[in-house]
Amino acid sequence: MIVKYTKILFGIAAIAAISLVSCQPSTTSTSKKSQDKRVTDLISQMSTEEKVGQMTQITLSALYTDGQLDLEKLRYGIVTKNIGSILNVNGLPLSITEWHQLLTQIQDIATQETSLKIPILYGIDAIHGTTYTQGSTLFPHNIGMGATRNTDLVGQSAKITALETRASGIRWNFDPALGIARQPLWSRFEEMYGEATALSIAMGSAAIKAYEEDGLDQITAVASCMKHYLGYSVPLSGKDRTPAYIPEAQLREIFLPPFIAAVNSGTSTVMINSGEINGVPVHASKYYLTDLLRGELGFEGLAVTDWEDIIRLNYRHHVAPTNKEAVKIAINAGIDMSMVPQDYSFYDDLVALVDEGEVPMSRIDEAVYRIMKLKFDLGLFDNPYPEKAAIANFGKESYQEVALTAALESITLLKNENGTLPLDTTAKVLLMGPGANNLGALHGSWSYTWQGQDENQFADETLTLKEALEAKIGVANVICNTTGNFDDSENTNIAFLNSHAAKSDVIMLVIGEKSYAESPGGIHDLNLADNQIQLAKAAYATGKPVVLLIAEGRPRVISSIVDGADAIMQLYRPASQGAAATMEILFGDYNPNGRLPYSYPRHAGDIILYDRKHTEEVTEFVPDSYGGGGYNPQWEFGHGLSYTTFSYGEIKLDKSEYTTTDKIQVSVEVTNTGNRAGKNSIDLFVSDHYASLTPSFKVLKGFTKENFEAGESKMIRFELDSDDLSFINSEGEKTIEAGEFSVRIGDKISTFRLK
Amino acid sequence: MIVKYTKILFGIAAIAAISLVSCQPSTTSTSKKSQDKRVTDLISQMSTEEKVGQMTQITLSALYTDGQLDLEKLRYGIVTKNIGSILNVNGLPLSITEWHQLLTQIQDIATQETSLKIPILYGIDAIHGTTYTQGSTLFPHNIGMGATRNTDLVGQSAKITALETRASGIRWNFDPALGIARQPLWSRFEEMYGEATALSIAMGSAAIKAYEEDGLDQITAVASCMKHYLGYSVPLSGKDRTPAYIPEAQLREIFLPPFIAAVNSGTSTVMINSGEINGVPVHASKYYLTDLLRGELGFEGLAVTDWEDIIRLNYRHHVAPTNKEAVKIAINAGIDMSMVPQDYSFYDDLVALVDEGEVPMSRIDEAVYRIMKLKFDLGLFDNPYPEKAAIANFGKESYQEVALTAALESITLLKNENGTLPLDTTAKVLLMGPGANNLGALHGSWSYTWQGQDENQFADETLTLKEALEAKIGVANVICNTTGNFDDSENTNIAFLNSHAAKSDVIMLVIGEKSYAESPGGIHDLNLADNQIQLAKAAYATGKPVVLLIAEGRPRVISSIVDGADAIMQLYRPASQGAAATMEILFGDYNPNGRLPYSYPRHAGDIILYDRKHTEEVTEFVPDSYGGGGYNPQWEFGHGLSYTTFSYGEIKLDKSEYTTTDKIQVSVEVTNTGNRAGKNSIDLFVSDHYASLTPSFKVLKGFTKENFEAGESKMIRFELDSDDLSFINSEGEKTIEAGEFSVRIGDKISTFRLK
Repeated sequence: MIVKYTKILFGIAAIAAISLVSCQPSTTSTSKKSQDKRVTDLISQMSTEEKVGQMTQITLSALYTDGQLDLEKLRYGIVTKNIGSILNVNGLPLSITEWHQLLTQIQDIATQETSLKIPILYGIDAIHGTTYTQGSTLFPHNIGMGATRNTDLVGQSAKITALETRASGIRWNFDPALGIARQPLWSRFEEMYGEATALSIAMGSAAIKAYEEDGLDQITAVASCMKHYLGYSVPLSGKDRTPAYIPEAQLREIFLPPFIAAVNSGTSTVMINSGEINGVPVHASKYYLTDLLRGELGFEGLAVTDWEDIIRLNYRHHVAPTNKEAVKIAINAGIDMSMVPQDYSFYDDLVALVDEGEVPMSRIDEAVYRIMKLKFDLGLFDNPYPEKAAIANFGKESYQEVALTAALESITLLKNENGTLPLDTTAKVLLMGPGANNLGALHGSWSYTWQGQDENQFADETLTLKEALEAKIGVANVICNTTGNFDDSENTNIAFLNSHAAKSDVIMLVIGEKSYAESPGGIHDLNLADNQIQLAKAAYATGKPVVLLIAEGRPRVISSIVDGADAIMQLYRPASQGAAATMEILFGDYNPNGRLPYSYPRHAGDIILYDRKHTEEVTEFVPDSYGGGGYNPQWEFGHGLSYTTFSYGEIKLDKSEYTTTDKIQVSVEVTNTGNRAGKNSIDLFVSDHYASLTPSFKVLKGFTKENFEAGESKMIRFELDSDDLSFINSEGEKTIEAGEFSVRIGDKISTFRLK
Repeated sequence: MIVKYTKILFGIAAIAAISLVSCQPSTTSTSKKSQDKRVTDLISQMSTEEKVGQMTQITLSALYTDGQLDLEKLRYGIVTKNIGSILNVNGLPLSITEWHQLLTQIQDIATQETSLKIPILYGIDAIHGTTYTQGSTLFPHNIGMGATRNTDLVGQSAKITALETRASGIRWNFDPALGIARQPLWSRFEEMYGEATALSIAMGSAAIKAYEEDGLDQITAVASCMKHYLGYSVPLSGKDRTPAYIPEAQLREIFLPPFIAAVNSGTSTVMINSGEINGVPVHASKYYLTDLLRGELGFEGLAVTDWEDIIRLNYRHHVAPTNKEAVKIAINAGIDMSMVPQDYSFYDDLVALVDEGEVPMSRIDEAVYRIMKLKFDLGLFDNPYPEKAAIANFGKESYQEVALTAALESITLLKNENGTLPLDTTAKVLLMGPGANNLGALHGSWSYTWQGQDENQFADETLTLKEALEAKIGVANVICNTTGNFDDSENTNIAFLNSHAAKSDVIMLVIGEKSYAESPGGIHDLNLADNQIQLAKAAYATGKPVVLLIAEGRPRVISSIVDGADAIMQLYRPASQGAAATMEILFGDYNPNGRLPYSYPRHAGDIILYDRKHTEEVTEFVPDSYGGGGYNPQWEFGHGLSYTTFSYGEIKLDKSEYTTTDKIQVSVEVTNTGNRAGKNSIDLFVSDHYASLTPSFKVLKGFTKENFEAGESKMIRFELDSDDLSFINSEGEKTIEAGEFSVRIGDKISTFRLK
């Protein structure tokens, strides 16, 4: 049976995300019609220059002089160049008051000094919380959210981000990122939900719904932006914004589904991938931007470029011999708005191209329609100014509780020998390592500043691990020389370690990566920095128990120091409440339940993922001793320990043989066999035994999370349908083939036939 | 202008390989017709069992019992199972006499005990010389041949391999390998000619011509086998025989052209890639095996599987639920002969499938026709036995001279500070490192044994580097504790180094990799083994001049020890005369001229190749300090020093603007500006400034090599045509677009327009 692939019926919807699948329009059909008329009436009054101006987005710093907003520059942009959108900050975060002042100045000019009085659409990167507003709550980066296996938490975090962003007067958020984290060298790995497509589908959709479900004209919502469409996350070399090579079948199997789900979840906008797929820059591709996005996916919202990506078709990608040609290619391919963002070359070139007939007015009108519609939807025509009522939604105490819960549920206990953890609060701790006293390492990219490295921009209340540890066990019980500077050589001073180890009961090392974002976060090698490796080895040599805490955006290889550690905990980028959450787990106040959203590689040259092909398995013919076995990561996808233990009963299926129209009822009894309560994530994998395209060993098709009291058993139920048994064939078509399949949950496996 | 891509007009043919392009048939049209009739007459007499038997290839060891040829097993295979082909050895190489005895026993049974008297076709892996015959001459592995930039040397080496293989009684050689070396983790990297397609085109074609040009029925020829068709060389994870993901445009741009050239050069057979492309195992693909190979490329020869690759469609690739289904898929896709090779399951399954109508007799007859035709072409029907006259062509003195020349022209001087090299023969040398006294490291895979690690199988005359150095400067001047065992910890004993350094004038360390072949050569990381790194650092600490000699099949990262070395020389796998050649260069008897056939990576996570896209360039916006700059290898493709220096004049073009039918005449004056004679390789690169598919920074389109006396200038001429300006577009079609192009030679660049 072959079904032409158009819309994915998201298989795990029934379990984790069923309410996300359909868009919930905030306007009725009648009001939609009247709004359409307002949009088309407005467009009919616009000159070419006014239309093209609306398609132009400028970065705030281009409107600054000597660190201050330059009203003449602002006026030139809005009045003379008719710009429709502004983004970003001038380097540093603003207070709520400053945001309101800024946006008021902007909207004053837009609505009082232009003939059509069209408000400005302001956009921002509020990636894991409201990045650029002072005192906002920041949540774990998506890679940690993937570890929670908890779409409710994703939704709650996104909702708070919506509230705090809207409270800042901003109504458009360039989030969520829907790439699949399959290239660990890539600097934006931490912004993704993990290596399994199903995680990105469920969590991205949860975020979009939370951002938009109340209706964009409400002060509790922002327009979301699915990004970066398409194929951004797997640059072959690992460098940001460089070529990916993705055959069509894999593009549609692995990378496209989260965008399909996002469209079905009602996202209003899309941001385009700055890279190129198979030599085709996505910004230049009518196939990706129009045929696939509009034709197949049915997306009707606004498509914005990423930073400077139109002229980069000229100077980076070399598909356009001039900037003007780049503009022509991109707009004709389907771009609606250009994040220019530094000058007015785009505006000038596009006006000329329209005049010359090189870009049809129909394409311009289509783009402007989408922009105007979004402005109407967001209520900007009714009130373009920051909404005073929204301010009360900023900075509530409860937000930190959600941030704490998210950090608690993300942090993943990777190793715990002989019950090393939890620690006793009477323990004397020697705390070292570059991340021990550094907020950037706990927060990662887009944390008050782009690179997240300016320690002065964090709120005073935000604790480093050193501060949180001191609060937990007392200053007198903490020995720590780690400075606030991640790169300070003192942080890995082995002489200090050796001279203080004897006074401690346990050594705690915070290793990993400093904060970074985008291209500056590139690395030459996946191995952890050698000075950190040496520090760990020196700690082991002292004979004291050693706990490794890892704060990192991507899995740096640590195989040489795994065996020596008594306990290892992956923090990812746990953000505002990360230090507090870490202490709750370390000292046993909370039972850890995070699960790896990726395969933690054992060696830098062994990047094989959980859904490997059978040829990538270690076998007796190709053992790991060859250095060439196959999937043998440091820790598998889904690994994560608890302070209790769980057992799985046999997987029960309601039939042994199904047809393609059947629902497949899966149930498994899960028991907390330990002596304390804890949450447990249950991943469900499907394996197609044989297929005309080589099948994966297993593919994640569902997940859920439940709390279990000590000794408690629960029956966990999943429902699959034939969509979960399908794959994309060589022709890019969705295919279902009869044969044997298996379902895997925990350490159990159950097999059935599809007729 | 768009041209549908069918046959490549090999652009550099005019320079490096023009006589290779057209096949030179060894039989006239009339004799071809009569031979066709002999073949079809024979097939008309064959039963299904006899036909299927001809398609069955068994490995020699399956016919052995207790280390001896088992005549009953042999008889069972040939008489009862009608097998048509045998391959390989039983582990160890045979002498010429043993080969003749073995093949005589085989052909006796085939021609005296079967009704149709069809001789056996014996095949062997004579990869870089006649691998499995004792005392044969082995040449540098292809990666070194790529460094020579000398197709004549490739041809001479292949011709000698043909002579020594035929002298052994074997008429079919599974060579050359035409993959492109673009995944340095891969264990078969050393078997490829380098990362540039043009090298593989020119050198692969030169080898094929040398193997076959005299006519397959002559005692100076063997049937060649282009392999491994297609896309084998870039497994995503680096593990051998695992999935590659190659979009169609890149498949046709980078990986297909050497096979097109090989078909046009007249290769008689093809071996199929054991891996999979985009989830499609090549052995199961009618598209690759029939539509593309037969339809587009027009190949008419015999297609043989690689080792066990039909049943692996079941147990490794999981595209066939049973072995029998695997046989059906592979044969219907276009396989002619199955390297089964351990049992008769293929034979039994295929006989049944034909009887059941699951495989049409037309497909069987087509396969058997190709097999029978090859046997006729090889003269097996006229004389199936080892040819006594061929024995005289084995082991000539002159072969070692060619092997020496090939090693001399391949060895690449990477660094030479302050004229450290050449050394004076009066120098006292401390020689250390695991490769200093090990023949495997100099020879690599397929050297008398599969793994090349059995030091006892090398000829007595073959020298290790230690032995060659002692011969050169006297035993008394060499301090060396390195044992014949590459893995012996004594080889990197720093205490030994420290206690003997003072007595030496120079320290010479032979670092790199031991010999390996195929899957057992997998690695977990591209970094050089740490004990070797530490040895080098210890050597630098002594203050003595240090020369690094690298014997390795793939570029292991050594960036941490590059700066400290006074001289670094890449030996690759230089084989029989490698040690002698190394000494000639080290002591100045020969002026080195090898050029890297790949980009030597600086870091394990920075694999970007010479033909990178512009987005992969280091720029002011994305500097290398980001850890994410772009192409910044340890040494660029084409790097290689000489004991003299060369300068390049401006590149002259005969016009400034061309049409697509023009030939482009390129000339450049090259001058030896130093004071000794030397050879110089001149690479020509073309850059398409802008194109609808992102263009590469540059692509190799021609190369040549000339000797220059001290002070001599020569005008070097290349001819390009529009084919050299073309690329494969997203639809897989060959395309030529008007615009600006550049030609780069040496440090010069010249630009022209295509109308």
